[in-house]
Amino acid sequence: MNEGEGLQLDDEGRLRHFLTIEGLNRQTLLDILDTAESFISIGEREIKKVPLLRGKTVVNLFFEASTRTRTTFEIAAKRLSADVINFNVGISATNKGETLLDTINSLEAMHTDLFIVRHSDSGAAYLIARYLPPHVRIINAGDGRHAHPTQAMLDTFTIRRYKGDFTQLKVAIVGDILHSRVARSLIHALNILGVPEIRVIAPKTLLPTAVEKLGVHTFHDMSQGLEGVDVVVMLRLQRERMHGALIPSAQEYFNLFGLTRDKLAAAKDDVIVMHPGPMNRGLEIDSSIADGPRSVILPQVTNGIAVRMAVMALIMGGQTARNRRPV
Amino acid sequence: MNEGEGLQLDDEGRLRHFLTIEGLNRQTLLDILDTAESFISIGEREIKKVPLLRGKTVVNLFFEASTRTRTTFEIAAKRLSADVINFNVGISATNKGETLLDTINSLEAMHTDLFIVRHSDSGAAYLIARYLPPHVRIINAGDGRHAHPTQAMLDTFTIRRYKGDFTQLKVAIVGDILHSRVARSLIHALNILGVPEIRVIAPKTLLPTAVEKLGVHTFHDMSQGLEGVDVVVMLRLQRERMHGALIPSAQEYFNLFGLTRDKLAAAKDDVIVMHPGPMNRGLEIDSSIADGPRSVILPQVTNGIAVRMAVMALIMGGQTARNRRPV
Amino acid sequence: MNEGEGLQLDDEGRLRHFLTIEGLNRQTLLDILDTAESFISIGEREIKKVPLLRGKTVVNLFFEASTRTRTTFEIAAKRLSADVINFNVGISATNKGETLLDTINSLEAMHTDLFIVRHSDSGAAYLIARYLPPHVRIINAGDGRHAHPTQAMLDTFTIRRYKGDFTQLKVAIVGDILHSRVARSLIHALNILGVPEIRVIAPKTLLPTAVEKLGVHTFHDMSQGLEGVDVVVMLRLQRERMHGALIPSAQEYFNLFGLTRDKLAAAKDDVIVMHPGPMNRGLEIDSSIADGPRSVILPQVTNGIAVRMAVMALIMGGQTARNRRPV
Repeated sequence: MNEGEGLQLDDEGRLRHFLTIEGLNRQTLLDILDTAESFISIGEREIKKVPLLRGKTVVNLFFEASTRTRTTFEIAAKRLSADVINFNVGISATNKGETLLDTINSLEAMHTDLFIVRHSDSGAAYLIARYLPPHVRIINAGDGRHAHPTQAMLDTFTIRRYKGDFTQLKVAIVGDILHSRVARSLIHALNILGVPEIRVIAPKTLLPTAVEKLGVHTFHDMSQGLEGVDVVVMLRLQRERMHGALIPSAQEYFNLFGLTRDKLAAAKDDVIVMHPGPMNRGLEIDSSIADGPRSVILPQVTNGIAVRMAVMALIMGGQTARNRRPV
Repeated sequence: MNEGEGLQLDDEGRLRHFLTIEGLNRQTLLDILDTAESFISIGEREIKKVPLLRGKTVVNLFFEASTRTRTTFEIAAKRLSADVINFNVGISATNKGETLLDTINSLEAMHTDLFIVRHSDSGAAYLIARYLPPHVRIINAGDGRHAHPTQAMLDTFTIRRYKGDFTQLKVAIVGDILHSRVARSLIHALNILGVPEIRVIAPKTLLPTAVEKLGVHTFHDMSQGLEGVDVVVMLRLQRERMHGALIPSAQEYFNLFGLTRDKLAAAKDDVIVMHPGPMNRGLEIDSSIADGPRSVILPQVTNGIAVRMAVMALIMGGQTARNRRPV
Repeated sequence: MNEGEGLQLDDEGRLRHFLTIEGLNRQTLLDILDTAESFISIGEREIKKVPLLRGKTVVNLFFEASTRTRTTFEIAAKRLSADVINFNVGISATNKGETLLDTINSLEAMHTDLFIVRHSDSGAAYLIARYLPPHVRIINAGDGRHAHPTQAMLDTFTIRRYKGDFTQLKVAIVGDILHSRVARSLIHALNILGVPEIRVIAPKTLLPTAVEKLGVHTFHDMSQGLEGVDVVVMLRLQRERMHGALIPSAQEYFNLFGLTRDKLAAAKDDVIVMHPGPMNRGLEIDSSIADGPRSVILPQVTNGIAVRMAVMALIMGGQTARNRRPV
């Protein structure tokens, strides 16, 4: 998947696609965060609209149903004045025997400008980006277990808003690290941004082998793992995991790894608690925490719009009519 | 449900949400009708668009499938220049175990401005309105058997257009009063607007107990009930009712309560016939009436767009950036 | 279906609906092609938007699922600045017992301006056009086996772009002529535009009886049929045909009628290969051809947007507020 690193930058180092956090440098991430900062105020205005993407066509190309994630991109694109097409591939021509690449090719031939791609296969967005001509831009909205880079950026954006600086922080990520594209992308981003201590807390069955290679410290116990942290990121536990041997029972999981007041007491007093949503209340997080004073879960959603607007604006900024494929 | 009455007005008596007709005063209803009157001409222009809601995000939050009602709100919002997000909750994160309130919270955190809510549970729109911060506005697009206030306003708007004045009218509402949110809301609106005689005509099995408390006269016979009326409002009979003991058979229902020329002859010569749609032709209404000279069923649809534009414009008019929740 | 011919022109011969190619004269088709030519450049601009249909409401009224075709019309309408409503009739009130015509009437009463209709029944778009008041315009996006006129126009537009002149061409259409609305509409268009030799190549089971009456030459053999042609149009073979007796097997069909390099060698050196999509690679067309230097399949898609914009702009051009039905 490391090829994606080169693919997403143009020759002058500007962001062309946004596929993965891996391989991006600190300045690129800071550019996204700073641009997002400038978009925050748009959501608070009377008229929440700027003309940056006017006359552009953005396609929500979702191979995996996710109304909420689609909605965040749809809102972000419309606030940039783009035209948005929701293309649900489950009910499209791929059902009629057309190949995925023929579908993509057809959409590109309609002079669409930006694809937001969600797919259950790791690497799908990357494959599409490699395949399409360079004037079409791709944002990965989640591919299998691989990456969810806009989520990592809204997470780090939220951390910076509350903590100011990355270089003194202890961040703990809790839960199903093994299957989580959110965790993978966030760990990469935190490393690049200079967070000195990243911890993952999970039962052994929910950790990838050799997870330490990602630059994290591993804990199997919440009281140790949360000790003195500034930020806790809870992951969603997919209930279907519980039908296998990965988790003994929902109750036992909650007892051991669910975030409660008792467990959170080990963290710093001004700890912030994050969750990418949708939450399983009473499974990975107690409602007293989710709705409590340390939760920044709803500000994450708000920030997600600004971050997605920023990524769209940045990767579309370099596009010129010059490099269009002639008819 | 009466709490909804206070909730939908702000401290200065302006409409903040539109949840139910109950508890609103005559002037508020007249304001809606008069505003709708000014929007009628927009639908007749070459360019059917005004910038009143430009830069606002309207969410169609439909928990119950209704393409046609959703379309009326979508058209109304787009003619006000709003951005519209169709959020079908059946296929959203609530399927992933997220609670309804978490879904609502997330949408609110995206700085959406107005929710159009349809739900099969009575009181759903009210619960959402009570739960959300006050700068987010709610329009009830139908909740269970409880209320459908925009339908009542388009009905009274249509009556006023054809009859001029409410205070001399006899209005008959025919059919499944028991299960009808349309009937409930309309009865409240007609009472508030000063209609002196409101009749309901239905078999006993389709009338709520103590229906007279709503301020109506009850009839079980069409020839008596329609005698001398100015307006007949036919209700949709949901076919699933016929599988129970409520109705003996479709044919017998039509014979007794279906609107035909013979039965309509008892009404005034200039009677108007209304129906909220979708119609069951041959069950509650004969095609000769539905398509006949006394029918104003299609003008109701036309008026529905203007009325929905008016309600949206009125409840959004008081919104300022001041009362936004900070990030 | 010939009534459609008169219906789609107004008294001064201007296009009012676009239902079928049959009965249109050469100048009308050339007007569409020339208008489309002027829209091609819009797709190549930085801001791909013109205000021609601003404030108009376009309804995608699809009774047959087709995400891709719907998307082409949605993109075309949005580039003309129209408001677009996707109305999927499968999940609408027609499920609740409402008649199709009541649904149409309701949409019309909302002051919608243009219906894009796809239906599995031949003649559906025509019926709707005949039924609705004349200020509502209809574009047939495919009705049963009957017609798909915008496809025929994008095909002829593509041919003219590559071949310049129609009057010296040999065009071969290959495959399931019997069930193809694409073939029917294209044959009419090519005849009207003066193509001197139109060939159809198909097994006897996939040809309509008396196909020669359409003004074509019939071939059952690819090497003879493709001899010296300038243009090859491959049709999509619907896989469900293979379950009947129409085709012996996919492999045998490909061997006899699938387009390969060997078979294409019989055509002129500068032949162009077209396909309406979605393709069944390895069934009616080999990938070496679909992706090869003679293929203009993706330019067809690009041209399809310009052609649909042109048709929309032309049929909406004559609309005035005068002829609106009063409320």
